[in-house]
Amino acid sequence: MSTTVSYRPADGQVAGAVEDSTPEQVAAVVTRAATAATATATASPAERAAWLGAVATALTDHAEELARLADTETGLGLVRLTGEVARAAAQLRFYASVGIEGSWLGVTVDGATDTSPRLVRVNQPLGPVAVFGASNFPFAFGVLGNDTASALAVGCPVVAKAHPAHVLLSVRLAELASDALAAAGAPDGAFGLVVGMDAGTALVCAPGISAVGFTGSQAGGLALWRLANERDIVIPVYAEMGTVNPAVMTAGARGRLEDVARGFVGSFTLGSGQFCTKPGMLLAPAGGDVADAVGRALVEAAPSPVMLTERIAASAAAGVERLVGAGAREVARTSGAGAGWSADAVVLAAPASALHPGSPLLEECFGPVAVVVEYDDPADRDRAIGALQGSLAGTVVTDGSGADPEAGALVARLARQVGRVTVDDWPTGVAWTWAQQHGGPWPATSAPAATSVGAAALGRWVRPVCFQSVPDALLPPAAREDNPWRVPRRVDGELR
Amino acid sequence: MSTTVSYRPADGQVAGAVEDSTPEQVAAVVTRAATAATATATASPAERAAWLGAVATALTDHAEELARLADTETGLGLVRLTGEVARAAAQLRFYASVGIEGSWLGVTVDGATDTSPRLVRVNQPLGPVAVFGASNFPFAFGVLGNDTASALAVGCPVVAKAHPAHVLLSVRLAELASDALAAAGAPDGAFGLVVGMDAGTALVCAPGISAVGFTGSQAGGLALWRLANERDIVIPVYAEMGTVNPAVMTAGARGRLEDVARGFVGSFTLGSGQFCTKPGMLLAPAGGDVADAVGRALVEAAPSPVMLTERIAASAAAGVERLVGAGAREVARTSGAGAGWSADAVVLAAPASALHPGSPLLEECFGPVAVVVEYDDPADRDRAIGALQGSLAGTVVTDGSGADPEAGALVARLARQVGRVTVDDWPTGVAWTWAQQHGGPWPATSAPAATSVGAAALGRWVRPVCFQSVPDALLPPAAREDNPWRVPRRVDGELR
Repeated sequence: MSTTVSYRPADGQVAGAVEDSTPEQVAAVVTRAATAATATATASPAERAAWLGAVATALTDHAEELARLADTETGLGLVRLTGEVARAAAQLRFYASVGIEGSWLGVTVDGATDTSPRLVRVNQPLGPVAVFGASNFPFAFGVLGNDTASALAVGCPVVAKAHPAHVLLSVRLAELASDALAAAGAPDGAFGLVVGMDAGTALVCAPGISAVGFTGSQAGGLALWRLANERDIVIPVYAEMGTVNPAVMTAGARGRLEDVARGFVGSFTLGSGQFCTKPGMLLAPAGGDVADAVGRALVEAAPSPVMLTERIAASAAAGVERLVGAGAREVARTSGAGAGWSADAVVLAAPASALHPGSPLLEECFGPVAVVVEYDDPADRDRAIGALQGSLAGTVVTDGSGADPEAGALVARLARQVGRVTVDDWPTGVAWTWAQQHGGPWPATSAPAATSVGAAALGRWVRPVCFQSVPDALLPPAAREDNPWRVPRRVDGELR
Repeated sequence: MSTTVSYRPADGQVAGAVEDSTPEQVAAVVTRAATAATATATASPAERAAWLGAVATALTDHAEELARLADTETGLGLVRLTGEVARAAAQLRFYASVGIEGSWLGVTVDGATDTSPRLVRVNQPLGPVAVFGASNFPFAFGVLGNDTASALAVGCPVVAKAHPAHVLLSVRLAELASDALAAAGAPDGAFGLVVGMDAGTALVCAPGISAVGFTGSQAGGLALWRLANERDIVIPVYAEMGTVNPAVMTAGARGRLEDVARGFVGSFTLGSGQFCTKPGMLLAPAGGDVADAVGRALVEAAPSPVMLTERIAASAAAGVERLVGAGAREVARTSGAGAGWSADAVVLAAPASALHPGSPLLEECFGPVAVVVEYDDPADRDRAIGALQGSLAGTVVTDGSGADPEAGALVARLARQVGRVTVDDWPTGVAWTWAQQHGGPWPATSAPAATSVGAAALGRWVRPVCFQSVPDALLPPAAREDNPWRVPRRVDGELR
């Protein structure tokens, strides 16, 4: 019997272990989810909102216990983790409210005409969703994070995979969620958990699973995407993976260099640099002053990074060496916490000419590491942007006047290769609102039109069905003439 | 130099030939499209509507010539083809109007709050789209069909591949479109054409191509999907492939057997059975009377099928043999036109128990061929439905009273595995309206949440970008405060 062992990043000691799910256990969890799918699909959005609300309440009721357990396993700190519990609860309530609002159902009614029968279109849930949460956000992007909340909001059961970086917490969250869901009247099987690498593989391959949500590394996300593409019935994989998230300074931004340097350091070292939205690169006018200022700001900030896992700590260190091998020079370094999964924070610099295809400079280095890439002129800078991979976010750093002459073209340019463009605002935080887009072109995600955060996240778990000449009484409730769920509709082409 | 040869289905003689595009020509067409992409993206929907309107006018201005050429190459008949030219023109105008309406832009604005910066989300075009049209609808799903019209409507340039079943027509349509677009002020490169199998492969692999639309066989669609998945930057492939499209008779429907049989025959022999929405299977109560009635109706209708290509004619005949090998019995047969790519129309029957995994009965047989699958009781029938692949459409055939007790459960059951459910209405026609959904679960399509017909078809060619703390003047026009394109918006969570 294999187990998943949990470690304490603070000192590298074992925090506990959980038995991995057997193939039979995985099959049983998926069967329960598939059985629940009809009930979760036919429940009203208001009923589902009550389920999500119960899970949110369970989180806040156990906030202290959960934050403590998460801190043991992740070392992310009690303050941050307590805040993240509150965020996860707020997300659950937000997706519930988006579910009730009902635009995601896309109800569209065309009356019969001379050339067309009566057509009614409405989205319906895909069925059980497999959720692979992130290491770096045990609550907000964990087993009860955005993917789970948005899937449940539209009526898809969820089977989550416990994350090895916080397996004890994953199990505890699953207990709390299962109890809360049962008490709130959700069907048995609406939520389930599996543990272990092999269980995760089996989950993606299980015929009862209809879609996959993933947050994590490119290697992990692409492995699941390939696995799903080899299924008999191929299913969508929404993998949010992330890349370098470039920030681009205009010439004018040099006028507020110290501010920019401090902001950049704050953003790339936040959470020990373990954000998928970390700005890993600052494209700056050449001259050396920007790199020097960022280096000074790092030394002043003096972070003490400790990483989520031993592997992440090791690969952050290896990443720095790879960047140096690719032509970057080390500008500044501060040492990590020293004990456990400690890692140094590092600022590097490289000329824009080093960004040739295949260079490690174009790839994400997960951890408190960033590169100042120096460009000689705007054409040089634009070539460098063109060499970058698709990213979740891109930032334009201007002179701050609101009228920087270079800003407009840079916003338009970055919009072509990222999911979110920020101006004079660091990209690290991802608000869960109606307008959010947390996604981006391949290989930042496997599905560039999708978002894993924000109201549109619900759209990943549904597909439209059109009902032609179907009597009103036989339509799904959302699509009926009397509109019992009071959802927005488009009737004969007009929004109502 | 290889060529694509065009044949006349009526007599199997050569109608003409077109030189295949060289790799250099393909690269040049893609480069022109990529260069045009900025101009097509920044044009307003009204400007793009003018381009599409010009193409529509070119079609109707040349309707007679085009229908004649299409008839030579496809044998689909002048009446049908003249109607299809009008349909293609109407589609171009419809997608143009959907583009102007602007909901597809998904403009969403969240004002800044204590916990969130100002976020503005808007969809933007993906870039050049490769379009692989269908053999069976040379206009409506051809090089100027739904895919091309919907892509141009959102500002994506299109590079179409000429269909070998109507390569002369493809070239002529491309000429007309290019001239009309140029005259209407569209940028050079907004539309291009390539010819030949190798050119099609090169097109999907070209770095300048951002997405693929395909209508045709499963083999063809999946080949392109695999090719796209092997690219360095993977791109979405919207392949509409189709499967058997089951029609399910309730016990009560037996009361109007002759009507049902005539309707079914009319639907499955329409266009010589060369519709992706052809109902290939009628699940009917056992007893033999339904199969007999369908057989009689076929003999009465006495169609004279002629197929689009020699390969399609041969594979329809081979399909009948494969179905017989899988346990179906031949109920009735009428002979084809006799000359050229002639094929027989055939009604078969099989017991529901023959629908085991891997059976050819579960696969589409393209052509004027259908199977009456006989079930003993509702449980037997529901098992049979469960054995079927995902389909574009599914039909419930009731007693016609509007209160058939079996209808509700069947509608709900079919909705789980098709993109469109019809009741007492054959599925062959696909109206281009707001509510249409022409898609369905894998393997009917490669992207079950997408539609290739109807207003939502535009959504395939865009991805959202969120603008965070970006000054209004730097936003794309659609997203600006003064809403110059007058598009629907969601502001602070409310539709306006």
